[in-house]
Amino acid sequence: MCGRIMDEWKNALRRHVAVGVRTTSELIRLIQPGDWDKRPIPGKRSVYEVAVHLAVLLEADLRIATGVTAAEMADFYAVPVPVDQIVDRLDQSFQYYEQRLLTGFTTRPTYWGVADDSTGWLMEAAVHLYHHRSQLFDYLNVLGYEFDLALFE
Amino acid sequence: MCGRIMDEWKNALRRHVAVGVRTTSELIRLIQPGDWDKRPIPGKRSVYEVAVHLAVLLEADLRIATGVTAAEMADFYAVPVPVDQIVDRLDQSFQYYEQRLLTGFTTRPTYWGVADDSTGWLMEAAVHLYHHRSQLFDYLNVLGYEFDLALFE
Repeated sequence: MCGRIMDEWKNALRRHVAVGVRTTSELIRLIQPGDWDKRPIPGKRSVYEVAVHLAVLLEADLRIATGVTAAEMADFYAVPVPVDQIVDRLDQSFQYYEQRLLTGFTTRPTYWGVADDSTGWLMEAAVHLYHHRSQLFDYLNVLGYEFDLALFE
Repeated sequence: MCGRIMDEWKNALRRHVAVGVRTTSELIRLIQPGDWDKRPIPGKRSVYEVAVHLAVLLEADLRIATGVTAAEMADFYAVPVPVDQIVDRLDQSFQYYEQRLLTGFTTRPTYWGVADDSTGWLMEAAVHLYHHRSQLFDYLNVLGYEFDLALFE
């Protein structure tokens, strides 16, 4: 019974994150070579920067959740992600996320002192993904892209 | 033990939706009178339309989840929301959502034939909220608003 309840929550979360990842990949695949460096909203991240942020955030947030240091996160973010590897990097982050969702993990306070349980972090990473997927979606619309993509199932 | 697991998931979801609602209210309160009818992204919803969509979606999605008809949803969406009542309407939707999160509810297939359990719908509404909060955030940035708001805790 306990297992069933937990499975229901984990399945629902996994499914919605999977939809977020799949649709994010589809958005990234639409990006034209000349647009990566554009900043559709002045002062905000470029198209490339948002795409890479999306590609790593599921993994980044759960690493932060385990109490890694600021220096370790700086090293993590410093690994370059070439344009043609962004989708693969996103898949890799999703696998990292999915594995921790299924097996559970131990949290420690973040390097700036925030404490939460693993469930809270898994949920945070999910809404974080949807937040920036929406940003990339808006960017492509501001740039005049025309596409038909169901963002929700 | 089962209760504790369920509480942990419900608490995490409630907390993240609460942050989404609070920050959405803060964004809505920033909107200047002359901007409601603007469409910062041509062809997409106006500022007013996104704000009202945010104000009702937590309730709308869970009503859809219970199998209400297309006509009933059309009536639901047709209720006008004056500009000065959008924040209150959002609070009302959150109360509706919170109550169903705490007590549970029975789902039926939607009027277009999609079936999901209550957990799936609760999660869907949460990411739906974060999707459009991001859209409103982008709109205000496109319009040149300057503000400092922590979107995540």
